Amino acid sequence: MANAKQPVQALLFDVFGTVVDWRGSVIRELTAFGNGRGLKHDWTKFADEWRGLYQPGMDEVRSGRRPWTILDVLHRESLLKLLDKYEIKGLAEHEIQHLVTIWHRLDPWPDAVDGLTRLKSRYIIGTLSNGNIGLMARMAKRGRLPWDVILGAEPARAYKPMPESYQRNAEMLNLAPHEVMLVAAHNGDLAAAAKVGLRTAFVVRPMEHGPGQKIDLAASEPWDVITDSFHGVADAMGCAR
Amino acid sequence: MANAKQPVQALLFDVFGTVVDWRGSVIRELTAFGNGRGLKHDWTKFADEWRGLYQPGMDEVRSGRRPWTILDVLHRESLLKLLDKYEIKGLAEHEIQHLVTIWHRLDPWPDAVDGLTRLKSRYIIGTLSNGNIGLMARMAKRGRLPWDVILGAEPARAYKPMPESYQRNAEMLNLAPHEVMLVAAHNGDLAAAAKVGLRTAFVVRPMEHGPGQKIDLAASEPWDVITDSFHGVADAMGCAR
Repeated sequence: MANAKQPVQALLFDVFGTVVDWRGSVIRELTAFGNGRGLKHDWTKFADEWRGLYQPGMDEVRSGRRPWTILDVLHRESLLKLLDKYEIKGLAEHEIQHLVTIWHRLDPWPDAVDGLTRLKSRYIIGTLSNGNIGLMARMAKRGRLPWDVILGAEPARAYKPMPESYQRNAEMLNLAPHEVMLVAAHNGDLAAAAKVGLRTAFVVRPMEHGPGQKIDLAASEPWDVITDSFHGVADAMGCAR
Repeated sequence: MANAKQPVQALLFDVFGTVVDWRGSVIRELTAFGNGRGLKHDWTKFADEWRGLYQPGMDEVRSGRRPWTILDVLHRESLLKLLDKYEIKGLAEHEIQHLVTIWHRLDPWPDAVDGLTRLKSRYIIGTLSNGNIGLMARMAKRGRLPWDVILGAEPARAYKPMPESYQRNAEMLNLAPHEVMLVAAHNGDLAAAAKVGLRTAFVVRPMEHGPGQKIDLAASEPWDVITDSFHGVADAMGCAR
């Protein structure tokens, strides 16, 4: 996969779903919050609906209808919509802030930290997420994700899957696109990255969307690496155990 | 120093001179290159002249006369000027690239890694350097600098000491200026940061410019922390030994 003349120098990672279990973490935090506050709701549905507002929020920015806006702000706006829909009233500002920052406190998949540590011994490893820098930095610190660099949509000022989001991240590392590999659990993300020349690694995460998951259960194209854990990526990329 | 109601959450570091011994490292690498290539020059003078072209190069960008240009490009241009001045001819592209990336291979001061590791246990730690992201990432990997985030002039698109360089770096961490402390060996850098509300820590580095150093040998203002090593910063900021 890694052409010997043009070796991969950096692996950049999609984060929500690929590195961390956003759904399980958000459900767990919402449930704990609801229990503490005496609020009874279907928090699994709430979590899925919150994530459902993710792409529409970014579309406003991608289309240029809205100036650059970080994901924390979009998460807050979509949360307020849902609180209204679920008729959850009277939350204090610090409670709203606690809920918005659930996305800063997502748990890594069990193989993530060890796999990243192996990859870090040989490559530059970093984030290429739509999450903003402050979000990613706090998530990494809490989850002990050993990133060399926190990159992504915010420093590129372009949300994935816009071509600039991948190109500018490679540039910020002084690398050509083919010297960067995107690791993601989402075929669409990999397709957009491959289109502008990045290498690709697909890690299937069959529980990202819960037990009824229907998408991204298999590679849709012959990506450079196809596996089911970060150890599989590390093995394929020649990293010591 | 750290107001209890508005505690510092992140420490951002000037890098050249504060974290790493740029001068000793550049002289060592130039000397090794010269010996290997059979070139006899005063490499100490060459190193100081190279660094002397640093501010004028950035001034072109700060003034707006030139669009955003990363430091690696400015380092290359100033190197080419000096090679011409020293009548060093016929270098191959890979040799020029080797020289430009000397700035990626600077050694940390002896207290840097241990002090940063202590600070990382309690705070977000990151770079706030005029060096570009690719440069900082490689320097960190080689020197085992345990940054949580690589920030600085490139993601802010503003060279220090412009106010935006400090303000945008705080913003990228979702922090108010007073929640960020700049750690630097340079009074001018701290003065510019303090002007826009950052906390300040001065670490004297009396050998940055060699044995004849005349500037930044003492704090010019009552900075929040004044010390002579990163352990001193960690002690002042309440980090365990």
